[in-house]
Amino acid sequence: MSETPSAEPWQWSEPHWRQLVDQVRAGRRYRPQRWKGDARCAVALSFDSDHETNELREGGKSIGRMSWGQYGNRVGVPRIEALLDRHGVKATFYVPAVVALLYPDEQRRLVAGGHEIGIHGWIHELNSILPGEAERDLMLRSADALETITGVRPVGLRTPSWDFSPNTLAIEKEMGLAYDSSLMADEDCYELLLHGEPTGIVELPVEWVRDDAVYFMMHRFQSLRPYTPPTDVLDVFRRELDAAYDEGGLFQLTMHPHIIGYRSRIWILEEIVRHAKAKGDVWFATHAEIAAYAKAEG
Amino acid sequence: MSETPSAEPWQWSEPHWRQLVDQVRAGRRYRPQRWKGDARCAVALSFDSDHETNELREGGKSIGRMSWGQYGNRVGVPRIEALLDRHGVKATFYVPAVVALLYPDEQRRLVAGGHEIGIHGWIHELNSILPGEAERDLMLRSADALETITGVRPVGLRTPSWDFSPNTLAIEKEMGLAYDSSLMADEDCYELLLHGEPTGIVELPVEWVRDDAVYFMMHRFQSLRPYTPPTDVLDVFRRELDAAYDEGGLFQLTMHPHIIGYRSRIWILEEIVRHAKAKGDVWFATHAEIAAYAKAEG
Amino acid sequence: MSETPSAEPWQWSEPHWRQLVDQVRAGRRYRPQRWKGDARCAVALSFDSDHETNELREGGKSIGRMSWGQYGNRVGVPRIEALLDRHGVKATFYVPAVVALLYPDEQRRLVAGGHEIGIHGWIHELNSILPGEAERDLMLRSADALETITGVRPVGLRTPSWDFSPNTLAIEKEMGLAYDSSLMADEDCYELLLHGEPTGIVELPVEWVRDDAVYFMMHRFQSLRPYTPPTDVLDVFRRELDAAYDEGGLFQLTMHPHIIGYRSRIWILEEIVRHAKAKGDVWFATHAEIAAYAKAEG
Amino acid sequence: MSETPSAEPWQWSEPHWRQLVDQVRAGRRYRPQRWKGDARCAVALSFDSDHETNELREGGKSIGRMSWGQYGNRVGVPRIEALLDRHGVKATFYVPAVVALLYPDEQRRLVAGGHEIGIHGWIHELNSILPGEAERDLMLRSADALETITGVRPVGLRTPSWDFSPNTLAIEKEMGLAYDSSLMADEDCYELLLHGEPTGIVELPVEWVRDDAVYFMMHRFQSLRPYTPPTDVLDVFRRELDAAYDEGGLFQLTMHPHIIGYRSRIWILEEIVRHAKAKGDVWFATHAEIAAYAKAEG
Repeated sequence: MSETPSAEPWQWSEPHWRQLVDQVRAGRRYRPQRWKGDARCAVALSFDSDHETNELREGGKSIGRMSWGQYGNRVGVPRIEALLDRHGVKATFYVPAVVALLYPDEQRRLVAGGHEIGIHGWIHELNSILPGEAERDLMLRSADALETITGVRPVGLRTPSWDFSPNTLAIEKEMGLAYDSSLMADEDCYELLLHGEPTGIVELPVEWVRDDAVYFMMHRFQSLRPYTPPTDVLDVFRRELDAAYDEGGLFQLTMHPHIIGYRSRIWILEEIVRHAKAKGDVWFATHAEIAAYAKAEG
Repeated sequence: MSETPSAEPWQWSEPHWRQLVDQVRAGRRYRPQRWKGDARCAVALSFDSDHETNELREGGKSIGRMSWGQYGNRVGVPRIEALLDRHGVKATFYVPAVVALLYPDEQRRLVAGGHEIGIHGWIHELNSILPGEAERDLMLRSADALETITGVRPVGLRTPSWDFSPNTLAIEKEMGLAYDSSLMADEDCYELLLHGEPTGIVELPVEWVRDDAVYFMMHRFQSLRPYTPPTDVLDVFRRELDAAYDEGGLFQLTMHPHIIGYRSRIWILEEIVRHAKAKGDVWFATHAEIAAYAKAEG
Repeated sequence: MSETPSAEPWQWSEPHWRQLVDQVRAGRRYRPQRWKGDARCAVALSFDSDHETNELREGGKSIGRMSWGQYGNRVGVPRIEALLDRHGVKATFYVPAVVALLYPDEQRRLVAGGHEIGIHGWIHELNSILPGEAERDLMLRSADALETITGVRPVGLRTPSWDFSPNTLAIEKEMGLAYDSSLMADEDCYELLLHGEPTGIVELPVEWVRDDAVYFMMHRFQSLRPYTPPTDVLDVFRRELDAAYDEGGLFQLTMHPHIIGYRSRIWILEEIVRHAKAKGDVWFATHAEIAAYAKAEG
Repeated sequence: MSETPSAEPWQWSEPHWRQLVDQVRAGRRYRPQRWKGDARCAVALSFDSDHETNELREGGKSIGRMSWGQYGNRVGVPRIEALLDRHGVKATFYVPAVVALLYPDEQRRLVAGGHEIGIHGWIHELNSILPGEAERDLMLRSADALETITGVRPVGLRTPSWDFSPNTLAIEKEMGLAYDSSLMADEDCYELLLHGEPTGIVELPVEWVRDDAVYFMMHRFQSLRPYTPPTDVLDVFRRELDAAYDEGGLFQLTMHPHIIGYRSRIWILEEIVRHAKAKGDVWFATHAEIAAYAKAEG
């Protein structure tokens, strides 16, 4: 930063707030006329397999929350896999390295099934407040761990915080990642700009509105409760899908094995898959495939 | 204040609490017999275009939230504009000066389209706790910035905090504003009283019940979540509209481009516009037009 | 208390926790075979007219929240009154003394209309943490203020906190109150016991489940939001009413003029009144009438 | 632990986080082919009878919340008992020792009615942060208190915190408990592993998704509100039940007399019971019976 910021934002100089805004920006939009196979709409399903890191990242004292994490591996992922297989759909799983080390077979099975494994931090650390060197080191080690376990080098990242530190994008560039899926400046894919310069990295944008945890997360010692009825969560997801289809755009969804996996929620995913398939000309693909296609054709 | 307040409100003297209550009050009600063009009901749609100031006002460290702000400009406003144009409806956009400086074209396009741009603070600062001089300085500079960019001097203010400092109303008077739209003592327009004296300034009241953010705001590190189903938000807005129509009153609504703009929510606005138009005798107008008409005819 | 409590509740001696539990208890249940006029069910509607004390009790700095309080007087109460009059129904309004002093005409009009005014603290102070003498002084002065303004001595109290200090019940007894409506040990009326001794004071119990603020309260700087759809709040209230009717019991409801008064909510009250009247043998009455009848006939 | 943990989880060594994860794990799954009496599905209904300990555990200052606790005994439990009796269904009540001492008749009545009483801590203390000796002492005394009062030695525990301290499982083993019902690594019963070693103790897993308090809890001074409509809570529970039935698994539900007991909620339990019975081949049983059967036949 070019100056010491004043205590209050309303006292900041224009160069200061412009600099804050311009760190990372959305550049040109990647929106193909048609999607692969002449599809009208692309569907990108993703699952953040946080499992025990949900608790470990906060200090790891709760055995109860750790058991909830194990549920993700023991029940959540298998149930999701079976559903995707039943419908012949490929998806992307973002996996913290610690989860991959705890459950290497889970990751190998997913890769064998044609799914993508993406980077999701080391232990689901809040990357946006890490010292620069630590963030870089953890990101490199995370990619290595995933590659060692699955035999495939990951090409995309979803940051654990769904946020960037001032260093994140530069690290992604250094690592040669093809895409990121953590920001939300658009509903279409776009190119990420670093301090105004094109990076060649595609952003495949997420949004809280299309995230199961937003509606269903439970944390006993915080005020988070699963207050929204499942039928209404389906309604939100379906409206997002229908409008993406009408526009010929992209429908991206984020879920979590330990959240969507429950018996009273997994049907939401099935309904979305069925609803999309019923349209006839929808392309289900991994985030990596969609990002590559959008960049090449958009 | 005439006395040092005691530590606890229940120890306050009557003059003290009366003074607190009497700072700003609702004076006479402005309720025309009929609205412009012999309409039975007036509809005042507004959009607070906070964009990146949502994050800047809190210190501006989150690149993720800043990308969400960019969504407001890149997707939210264009989608809203297209909808309003399709239905031939004019509305009011309240825009922090920093947003106007980041996106001057957006503001010019809106003004060219017949919409109103109103003041919404400098950087969406919490005006109600500012030192008096700072509040006055920021408000004057905000009005100047909007005028410089759009060529039109703004005549109305929605305070960023939906609240007043002890100085806000006097500053509005000094600036010669025609109306304010931040308080909630009525559902009809009314005259603002300052220490019991009429100011000539019209209040066009807002209410949380008619604000999209109340139901849909998401903040990862607070407990705010979009728990209310969109269909039920429509139900609330429609009931407010229907009863305003039955009474021959005013229906005022506040939305945000980065909240209502999503594919799963924008239809709510369209349903409200359709529902109002179907009644036949409804007057859609900017807040400035409605405040002026209410004062002249009420 | 007979001992200095240990730091942690799990270290407390049995006499200590028994003493805590036994301060105030529910004694015998007052459940008449039939209600007045051979009615099967009694309906006790109440409105806590907090108005500006909602903000004054917290320090009174927010002019915006104070305007919201004025809404209670300017729009909320008149709308409720008109509805009750239309249906010929009497209700109870619990009014902090400061509200009564700000709006004496409102209280006189309500009393003239046959409604009851009950005590609701001085400035809506959190009575349960007041020093004993202060609580007693404020309660006595509150009763005096209401009597001076309305000409009727109040006979019942709803504590502002819906809670008791260790002194509250003794003060009620000293004041000769007929009933209290702040606790929730039953759905029927019951006699309050003070340290195991009958007091002759009737409790007409409240419950959060039957309070509009629970579902609809908005506080910008807290996490409270009106997340529950109005149609579902009606569903809860109607189920409470239907089951009370089936049991031949009491249906008690708490609302607030600045919450239920809005156009998108007031219909809930009307539906409840209509639904109860449609049953044919329901007795609508003030809390004072119901408490007296329950004690005499139960 | 084998090392002093670094300040931040992302700095932890692999042995350290593995140790945290491996303290308590889910071992082999107990899933019978068919349930008792050739039933396709087992239904385990439970009620945590917290009553006044809801407030006592937090220091016991609120007389209002204590009256709410009394409601659990005075209205909630009798209403639940009547419902269960009407349908001939047995259930499990987890009762803190202090509640059992306050209301010994309630516990004896339940046992006489064929229901199970399980351990639920001494005063609903947060067991997971207790010193080891204190936790052990309280658990032993709680079991003794329940046995003295009801004449039956409890064989199962639901921890008040739905969590384990590092010592909980060892204490359960020392006490010879047959089962625990506090963790959530599966939807089927499973064997608990302590540091990787089988313990012989069955876990009958709970989940927040199947807990009434999650949707309905109210705490005035926290942000917890009963925002979810009762009809939607039924929908969640029914979906959990239907899918458990389809899989031939276990449907476990946790409720609280002071929460589900209200007139506007108790019907949810009745609908669930009716819905399960309508299927024809469902086995309703206590948690102890189900845990024993699952272990023997699974």
